[in-house]
Amino acid sequence: MSQEITGATRLCFVVADPVRQLRTPQVLNTVWETRGLDLITLPAHVPADGLSDFVAGMRSNESVSGAVITVPHKQSVIELCDELGPNAAIVGAVNVVRRTPTGRLVGETFDGLGFVAGLRARGFEPNERRALVLGAGGAASAVAVALLGAGVERLDVSNRTPSRARALAERLRSAFPSADIGTGLSRVADAELIVNATSTGMSPSDTSPLPPELFPAGALAADVVMSADLTPFLAAAASSGARTHDGFNMLTGQIGLIADYLAA
Amino acid sequence: MSQEITGATRLCFVVADPVRQLRTPQVLNTVWETRGLDLITLPAHVPADGLSDFVAGMRSNESVSGAVITVPHKQSVIELCDELGPNAAIVGAVNVVRRTPTGRLVGETFDGLGFVAGLRARGFEPNERRALVLGAGGAASAVAVALLGAGVERLDVSNRTPSRARALAERLRSAFPSADIGTGLSRVADAELIVNATSTGMSPSDTSPLPPELFPAGALAADVVMSADLTPFLAAAASSGARTHDGFNMLTGQIGLIADYLAA
Repeated sequence: MSQEITGATRLCFVVADPVRQLRTPQVLNTVWETRGLDLITLPAHVPADGLSDFVAGMRSNESVSGAVITVPHKQSVIELCDELGPNAAIVGAVNVVRRTPTGRLVGETFDGLGFVAGLRARGFEPNERRALVLGAGGAASAVAVALLGAGVERLDVSNRTPSRARALAERLRSAFPSADIGTGLSRVADAELIVNATSTGMSPSDTSPLPPELFPAGALAADVVMSADLTPFLAAAASSGARTHDGFNMLTGQIGLIADYLAA
Repeated sequence: MSQEITGATRLCFVVADPVRQLRTPQVLNTVWETRGLDLITLPAHVPADGLSDFVAGMRSNESVSGAVITVPHKQSVIELCDELGPNAAIVGAVNVVRRTPTGRLVGETFDGLGFVAGLRARGFEPNERRALVLGAGGAASAVAVALLGAGVERLDVSNRTPSRARALAERLRSAFPSADIGTGLSRVADAELIVNATSTGMSPSDTSPLPPELFPAGALAADVVMSADLTPFLAAAASSGARTHDGFNMLTGQIGLIADYLAA
């Protein structure tokens, strides 16, 4: 990077424990430089029991624009925010905190929004499409909320433990009362978008969470797991003629949104 | 600067209100770069009522090496430190806080130490010399403590309000019980080092705090006031045949010491 840091430079932290392995500082600093912004991203190695003090310090520092919040702080940071964005409030997680000029801290999650931005960047508009989300944890919740926010025609949630899928569907129905939200695989045959939001694919011995014969030909199979190799889910999709969309699209989709949010 | 910030980069703040006019980030970043250190200096615009939260945030952030503390926080930061260095404890001010790997915050002041380093850089060793310090405020106190620490043969303090000089001399005698410490101008005639540590010279209409006829020929007249022009004190010194040493020497002397302290 070639920006000069001056007394007027604004700060953006990447808060995690540990933090040294993360590439987010380099990625965001490249974005600020490309955009010509006097903003710099810095690592902040903050253990779980230090988060509250760290956030108070951020609030008191008028040089701060905000922070990207990651493991293990995405849930615990919620109660430290003054206000939550619409996605964070429903999902129950925050991965970016913005500091307003008056020192208010507003939390939002861009995991699901980044997933949707990644779809659009590759030419898939989820509005009016039929979607199936596999999984019922934090990633599934974030993706489902963002897809409903983007106006999918219907959304089904399927999980190995069906009660968890039903619980997620209930939460989604409270937030989107007029949406068509189902559970299970009964409507898989005409799904246009199938998302693996389970952690399947993070271990080499994993098998696809959806058997190859259940992928509808022509559907888009999108993974949230980032892997240099094809994940078992994407391999099963490809073998059955579905199109594939890897987990890196969610990351690249998210970077631009986070940059817009923190630079605003 | 050309350093790349990664997840492993360590942080050093410059804490002030306001902060945008300060050149300290650029100066220190040049030092880190020259030394090849993965350390970056950043502005932190912290108002007086936010200092306590800011310091708590610094303590909780393991990426932090420390901070340079300046106006208006040099006194109020003292009670937020876990430990004070020898100069800070006597002077009653802190301008650098170092964060140890266990999160302890150690405060020290480098104003006086930087002044002494600046003298040495220009070839004047204060050890065993006869010194006179004009002024009795924070700068005079810092310079006097550092000169006594450097082993001057004697130190006199003179001030327009003599009671303030006597009070400072008393404090110095408590900290350096075996030193020869006096007040007033009675021993000016054979002083080898005369320091202007008053604020005289900051305003264009100021006159020298020591009349030209009182400068001993051959003495070194050193100012702590930074001015692009010769200060009234240094002008009076030059006109009477004394050697001059401007206020910028204290700043440059200090930078190296602060860098050593924070990079340790």
